[in-house]
Amino acid sequence: MGELIFVGLGLGGVDDLSARAIRTLKECDQVYGEFYTSKLIDSTPDDLEALIGKKIIRLSRKEVEEEETVVDAAKKGKVAFVTAGDTMAATTHVDLKIRAEEEGVSTDLIHGISIFTACSSALGLQPYKFGRTVTIPFPEPGYTPLSPYENIYDNWSRGLHTLVLLDIREEEGRYMTANQAVQWLMDAEKAKGLGMITEKTIICAAARVGSRTQKVAANYPQKMLVEDMGPPLHAVVVPGKLHFIEAYALAKFAGAPEDIIED
Amino acid sequence: MGELIFVGLGLGGVDDLSARAIRTLKECDQVYGEFYTSKLIDSTPDDLEALIGKKIIRLSRKEVEEEETVVDAAKKGKVAFVTAGDTMAATTHVDLKIRAEEEGVSTDLIHGISIFTACSSALGLQPYKFGRTVTIPFPEPGYTPLSPYENIYDNWSRGLHTLVLLDIREEEGRYMTANQAVQWLMDAEKAKGLGMITEKTIICAAARVGSRTQKVAANYPQKMLVEDMGPPLHAVVVPGKLHFIEAYALAKFAGAPEDIIED
Repeated sequence: MGELIFVGLGLGGVDDLSARAIRTLKECDQVYGEFYTSKLIDSTPDDLEALIGKKIIRLSRKEVEEEETVVDAAKKGKVAFVTAGDTMAATTHVDLKIRAEEEGVSTDLIHGISIFTACSSALGLQPYKFGRTVTIPFPEPGYTPLSPYENIYDNWSRGLHTLVLLDIREEEGRYMTANQAVQWLMDAEKAKGLGMITEKTIICAAARVGSRTQKVAANYPQKMLVEDMGPPLHAVVVPGKLHFIEAYALAKFAGAPEDIIED
Repeated sequence: MGELIFVGLGLGGVDDLSARAIRTLKECDQVYGEFYTSKLIDSTPDDLEALIGKKIIRLSRKEVEEEETVVDAAKKGKVAFVTAGDTMAATTHVDLKIRAEEEGVSTDLIHGISIFTACSSALGLQPYKFGRTVTIPFPEPGYTPLSPYENIYDNWSRGLHTLVLLDIREEEGRYMTANQAVQWLMDAEKAKGLGMITEKTIICAAARVGSRTQKVAANYPQKMLVEDMGPPLHAVVVPGKLHFIEAYALAKFAGAPEDIIED
């Protein structure tokens, strides 16, 4: 019987892969991957193919969620399923693991570096103090859900930070920018009016976290609206109550105004 | 002027280090490390020394927090500061980075795999649905803070999961076990009486996450009190509202009773 190994590729490039991950991928008969929930910053799937010496069969959302391609292959041999970031971050990865085990395929995980913690590290914010994570979707005509704002408010009112992940439409090559997210937050504030996003609210952005060109910024909304964060992927953090060291780190490393240290 | 690079070593062993991290550590003139906030599971600092071909100068909490050893060395050359997990997870790491930059030392980060996300992946729980993280300390005579219970309750009452980190007393070789944490939760429930930890509350434990001997378990408190999770490090998760796939994953991979799937 076969084996299915879920490998998180981390965030940067093939140079950030562990010896264990590379050896495992080299040993596999087939390597499948999905790059629609996230992608590597410093490398392409082609670079990974060159490193491990085999093709990566790239799957669409439909192929991961509805088809049995991966499980069928794993019944017959040693198969890997790779994703950027950590593995199992999406429900569909967990679902795939369950389906494989139910077919008698043994499974294993090789963890990868994830935006869920690397973003807080990049900004110097304490990972303990993050509440639930939120995703802002691209606006659809006639459909503007305000639940992300409400969930951020729910964290913020408790003094907790919020990691805000931004929509990815990989098929269309669209990646929401931090600027767009700041505009979304300002619009949501107008609609809900809870006083969370004011002229004096610090918003943090982190671009290409885990890559060689990682960039962080933190400032008031009007500044963040035009801050050039460069190419994707971007993420945003709405901080809650800042510890002195956190405020200091934002001022020192992310360009936040010095007066936040005194507050 | 020198350089200080903060390297997160991840959770497993030296085999889990990236090519980039190994190359960087080999290039450094000095490598400092602290292993009192966390430690590698599959390797010792000696294994790392053998891999990179130099000594790792192990620092006590006092040396990291109060002394200028690392910054002074980084003024003169290329220096690394290594920790298990991701770097910057502790306030003192951020403080060290700030002190270095203030002395004109340039700094950089190489991220590592962190318990903050690998634990949710190991259990098949969705990382989005975690509220703030909590640490349970070893009880001290005459001092039993209930704030961890209150913070877990705050997450739980909103349907959010809580990652519960367990106290490490590295100097004394004491690592809190999942069993001790479950006992702590049951005692806190008795003291506070909010109805969160009942006979029918599922508690999850994950041991040696990110290592070759990773083990997960999920069950009712009375069962988890005696579940043998093996050697440290252990972590606990008090789940909030479980999505169908999450409940399924806990039943399938962590031995939780099947009836949680129906709930």
